[in-house]
Amino acid sequence: MILIHKKSGKKFYIEEVNKDFHTNFGILKKDDLIKSKPGDIIISHIGEEFLVLNDTFIDKIEKIIRKTQTINYKDIGMLISLTGIGSGSNIIEIGTGSGFLTAFLANIVKPFGKVYSYEIREDFYEIAKKNLEKLNLIDYVELKLKNAYEGLDEKDIDVVISDIPEPWNLIDHAYKSLKFGGFFVSFLPNITSVLKLLDNNDKFLFLGVYENITRKWIYKKSNVLRPRNVELVHTEFLVLLRKI
Amino acid sequence: MILIHKKSGKKFYIEEVNKDFHTNFGILKKDDLIKSKPGDIIISHIGEEFLVLNDTFIDKIEKIIRKTQTINYKDIGMLISLTGIGSGSNIIEIGTGSGFLTAFLANIVKPFGKVYSYEIREDFYEIAKKNLEKLNLIDYVELKLKNAYEGLDEKDIDVVISDIPEPWNLIDHAYKSLKFGGFFVSFLPNITSVLKLLDNNDKFLFLGVYENITRKWIYKKSNVLRPRNVELVHTEFLVLLRKI
Amino acid sequence: MILIHKKSGKKFYIEEVNKDFHTNFGILKKDDLIKSKPGDIIISHIGEEFLVLNDTFIDKIEKIIRKTQTINYKDIGMLISLTGIGSGSNIIEIGTGSGFLTAFLANIVKPFGKVYSYEIREDFYEIAKKNLEKLNLIDYVELKLKNAYEGLDEKDIDVVISDIPEPWNLIDHAYKSLKFGGFFVSFLPNITSVLKLLDNNDKFLFLGVYENITRKWIYKKSNVLRPRNVELVHTEFLVLLRKI
Amino acid sequence: MILIHKKSGKKFYIEEVNKDFHTNFGILKKDDLIKSKPGDIIISHIGEEFLVLNDTFIDKIEKIIRKTQTINYKDIGMLISLTGIGSGSNIIEIGTGSGFLTAFLANIVKPFGKVYSYEIREDFYEIAKKNLEKLNLIDYVELKLKNAYEGLDEKDIDVVISDIPEPWNLIDHAYKSLKFGGFFVSFLPNITSVLKLLDNNDKFLFLGVYENITRKWIYKKSNVLRPRNVELVHTEFLVLLRKI
Repeated sequence: MILIHKKSGKKFYIEEVNKDFHTNFGILKKDDLIKSKPGDIIISHIGEEFLVLNDTFIDKIEKIIRKTQTINYKDIGMLISLTGIGSGSNIIEIGTGSGFLTAFLANIVKPFGKVYSYEIREDFYEIAKKNLEKLNLIDYVELKLKNAYEGLDEKDIDVVISDIPEPWNLIDHAYKSLKFGGFFVSFLPNITSVLKLLDNNDKFLFLGVYENITRKWIYKKSNVLRPRNVELVHTEFLVLLRKI
Repeated sequence: MILIHKKSGKKFYIEEVNKDFHTNFGILKKDDLIKSKPGDIIISHIGEEFLVLNDTFIDKIEKIIRKTQTINYKDIGMLISLTGIGSGSNIIEIGTGSGFLTAFLANIVKPFGKVYSYEIREDFYEIAKKNLEKLNLIDYVELKLKNAYEGLDEKDIDVVISDIPEPWNLIDHAYKSLKFGGFFVSFLPNITSVLKLLDNNDKFLFLGVYENITRKWIYKKSNVLRPRNVELVHTEFLVLLRKI
Repeated sequence: MILIHKKSGKKFYIEEVNKDFHTNFGILKKDDLIKSKPGDIIISHIGEEFLVLNDTFIDKIEKIIRKTQTINYKDIGMLISLTGIGSGSNIIEIGTGSGFLTAFLANIVKPFGKVYSYEIREDFYEIAKKNLEKLNLIDYVELKLKNAYEGLDEKDIDVVISDIPEPWNLIDHAYKSLKFGGFFVSFLPNITSVLKLLDNNDKFLFLGVYENITRKWIYKKSNVLRPRNVELVHTEFLVLLRKI
Repeated sequence: MILIHKKSGKKFYIEEVNKDFHTNFGILKKDDLIKSKPGDIIISHIGEEFLVLNDTFIDKIEKIIRKTQTINYKDIGMLISLTGIGSGSNIIEIGTGSGFLTAFLANIVKPFGKVYSYEIREDFYEIAKKNLEKLNLIDYVELKLKNAYEGLDEKDIDVVISDIPEPWNLIDHAYKSLKFGGFFVSFLPNITSVLKLLDNNDKFLFLGVYENITRKWIYKKSNVLRPRNVELVHTEFLVLLRKI
């Protein structure tokens, strides 16, 4: 359940509604929480107003546990628009991490597509599992505690996505798992790794290396409109290869 | 049906397989076309090899008729990752144009979500209809030949997207159609229009104005790896507002 | 006098050489400091090596007192290359601040050009004066404790540079002071101010609004080469106008 | 002599004033040209007005003969602001080309600094010579028809700039020619070359690799203010090394 404190715009994510919820802006009573629905206003014991929102995916995913660095929103957008991932797509992800990208993809490919996600660390596997359960997306994901370097089990896949440091070890496996026309995407922070992947690629058609600088602008009624000064300008290069 | 000429990497999109297909690399016979499936090689009458690909969405959308300027891939990616549009989302689009963004969205929200798309020009409406039919996405779209300034018919919408020049006229209508927590997104090429929209916004929470510079890199085996020199660095500002 | 600690690459700027200098890497004796020249190695009392550098301008300017936000290096570069400022140029700067840009310009226009710099705050005027004296550039600058809105005293100027928030008040004054063919440059952080300046400009030829995203890359021998993650992507818009 | 056609803003550069000058906007008579001075208006035989400008460096450099690709304005600005090149600096340039960067630098280092510029192709050497003569900057430049790989003649140099494809061959020579504290700058279009230079650098302190995306905005009175759509986003990486 998601609430917004009207004055500050601050969001609160409530997991259990059958007890009182404490905020800096006063206590919200469990009786009010239980009976409320999206659009309702709940008033705290000191008179502050909170609006009940619909539980949108974008709010919920913000609140998942992240023990790993996750793929940035801007890079997820680039991935989806370059490969045309849609409802029904079948995807392999290598490097589940906290399951952030996994969730984003599951939310799109559901209900008839699937994300097969490989992870070698058991602690990450467990975190991802909990996150996907909390987001009600676990049905569209097959989490695999397995080393992708030893092979990929699936066939006829639309997109294989690597978020691990040495994707050149995956070239053969990814090629076998993909449909003709399918994409092999690698996220890599260093250009040296991009170069090594491309120099080692003897199977796929090279489509491009992409990077993305997204700027957010600030606006205030008093004639302030300008780009935010400091920005995350580098996260990952996206290498796009295609099976033909 | 999509073919790739193996030597050049050039793509061919064949709409009718029951006749011969002429290319710069020779003629492909209809008998070969009819019986082929993804992964097969078809050989032209002059001996050139063509690989049969799966019909991926991203290939098919490239080939639709575009009579209007369409939202760029990079901006579609930004839209999806910022709003969390997924399978099942219900979306209003204002300004159908050729139906390019419409198709991208329909491909994600299907089979249980829907895109309601408003257009005032009948010629665009007809082009978009044909494009969506060709892409087999028409079932997930309701095309409306209707002026959005006069009101929007739908309720409980996840995201309202404006791709028209004067979105300030849509503030009240978008607000009424959206769920609590829903997003109103406007694409605008001029910062002056962004400013006018924000100065006129008396209903929505302002989340940000976003813009996106995507660079593509070139790679050749002989030690060439560099960003493409010239790039489309400006298309649209994306204004993100939220109903709370 | 500038020293670099060889192991760490850390720079030390010594103003007085006739006393011992204390660092985290040991004490440098005044006798060693006095007799050393560029290229010499000085050894601290704990055996650490320091190399004596030539006093380059770029080292010295880093060390000046800055009480104000200063124009960024990238924007100084853009200013110089767009206007062709060179040795012998005569320049008016409005908004001296700490004298950072003033010093950069003086170092280029000397010995026969001049920077006339206007400032209304006496504390800034005093800081700038000290900074320019320390840099031995005061002879090429005329610092003026004076409100530029009331008029500019000079004629036949090559470039007038505004680093104050309301340059539209300077349009007439700048026009009178400039040569035919001279440039009026305004640095402005908000696009709303850019718009106001351009809408109010009834005298100058508009050449362009410029902005500059400079990225720095990180390199380590162990195959690390990538853009720095976080970068100052927005500082100022540069508005370039010309008297014709 | 530089004129601007007032209505169109189009610039004309007249090399010989003692004959009539023909434009799309009519003929300018030689008598009018000879007696005019900056600020005057000359009227063509069909009544169009032309304003006489001062001959600024930035206008003149636009008109020089360019037989080679030249370093872009944005990269020249970055070079100057990162190294603090000023009046009196002594600079070695390797790869004179058409002399474009040479001229920019000479215009700054004059009258007491010097640019020593190496070129191996005689045709480029001749073009550069003519260009520098036309710009009255030849006195501040020593053009050398000589292979820099065989050694550099000068000592005590402030900045060595390489604009050739294999700067790793210059590391030792540049090191010997530079002052302690001096900079070795390489312009390189490919990141693979950047990597090779850095991997081969065993003498200099690495300061950074820089790149620069400069955007120009378009403005029209009718509420148009937006970045230009297409931009030259990649020219060269600038590698900055320092002798310590």
